[in-house]
Amino acid sequence: MAKREEILRVAAEMFYEDGFARTSMDDIAARLAVGKPSIYALFESKRELLSEVCNRTTQYAAAIAGEAAVRVGSPSTRLRHIVEQLCLRVIEGRRHLSVLFRDYKHLPPEALGELAENFHAFNRSLGALLREGVETGEFTVQDPVIVTHAISGMGTWIYAWYRPEGPLSPEEISFQMADLALRMVKLGGDPGPTAPE
Amino acid sequence: MAKREEILRVAAEMFYEDGFARTSMDDIAARLAVGKPSIYALFESKRELLSEVCNRTTQYAAAIAGEAAVRVGSPSTRLRHIVEQLCLRVIEGRRHLSVLFRDYKHLPPEALGELAENFHAFNRSLGALLREGVETGEFTVQDPVIVTHAISGMGTWIYAWYRPEGPLSPEEISFQMADLALRMVKLGGDPGPTAPE
Repeated sequence: MAKREEILRVAAEMFYEDGFARTSMDDIAARLAVGKPSIYALFESKRELLSEVCNRTTQYAAAIAGEAAVRVGSPSTRLRHIVEQLCLRVIEGRRHLSVLFRDYKHLPPEALGELAENFHAFNRSLGALLREGVETGEFTVQDPVIVTHAISGMGTWIYAWYRPEGPLSPEEISFQMADLALRMVKLGGDPGPTAPE
Repeated sequence: MAKREEILRVAAEMFYEDGFARTSMDDIAARLAVGKPSIYALFESKRELLSEVCNRTTQYAAAIAGEAAVRVGSPSTRLRHIVEQLCLRVIEGRRHLSVLFRDYKHLPPEALGELAENFHAFNRSLGALLREGVETGEFTVQDPVIVTHAISGMGTWIYAWYRPEGPLSPEEISFQMADLALRMVKLGGDPGPTAPE
């Protein structure tokens, strides 16, 4: 009997390698070396597997958004934290993100709606943080919406270029991305420390 | 007899709406109101149509890379230009980019190789420009590779969030993105003008 997590891990792997359309429940069962009924005992359909795989990516986004809303520390400190978390989660979940961006059209509409809502929650949190920093005089931002998309974009895009064999660790990449985000919002300001603590 | 450009426009539209796998040559012929032979007279296969559609996106990238290599103006001026061009092209070609990111696994390996090479050409040009700016003392950049990915990412990601009915024009968005890129590389420097000329 395959465990829920194990099924999801293998499904994510196979969707990533071959795409949703070309992966059958038979393929997934074969790689798990179980019968299909033990998968169907836990998941109604291949689409449900896809929903769960994709859901992980935006659950992270929503979780980071939640953290950002907890107002501890200055806007700069919190911006660094939210960007680092975004980058670390993108690196960790890069294969799930690939599946999401490639196969989201196969998702049931409710699942797609939930995913979109999680992304929006992240953007709203980041936008609110930027506006707060402007109000406190810490940030100089022309348009918080554009800066939100720019930060979201440079973080999310890591899924497309990150290679585990590259010269920088996930922590170093995330730290540098946070530096860049701080530079974007702090006109002529302190760029923060230049090396991870 | 359908014209080459018209066929590509309709194919891109249908791949964008329904995905490559779910669009048949029959569907494309039907929307064009022509017989399939008039498509096959110009394109060998549906895959060739996909290659051509995807190729447009990275041809732009390669073209911008080429322009950036022409060394006219300061690194800042050229960085502004390359970022604005990237953003404008992404907005213009956002549907083609969606098709590329969703269906690249259906491309023949040669086509995929060429696409990747065009993207790399863009990144190499941008990286070279950043290093040049560091050498002239105009830019302060910790790691040109990370900054290249960050700029590429925030520009490319526009394809995912841009809506024609949004409050900013493509030119305004591109101008602000260029401002942000300049802030990233100019520590405490002049952010440039704050409104499009």
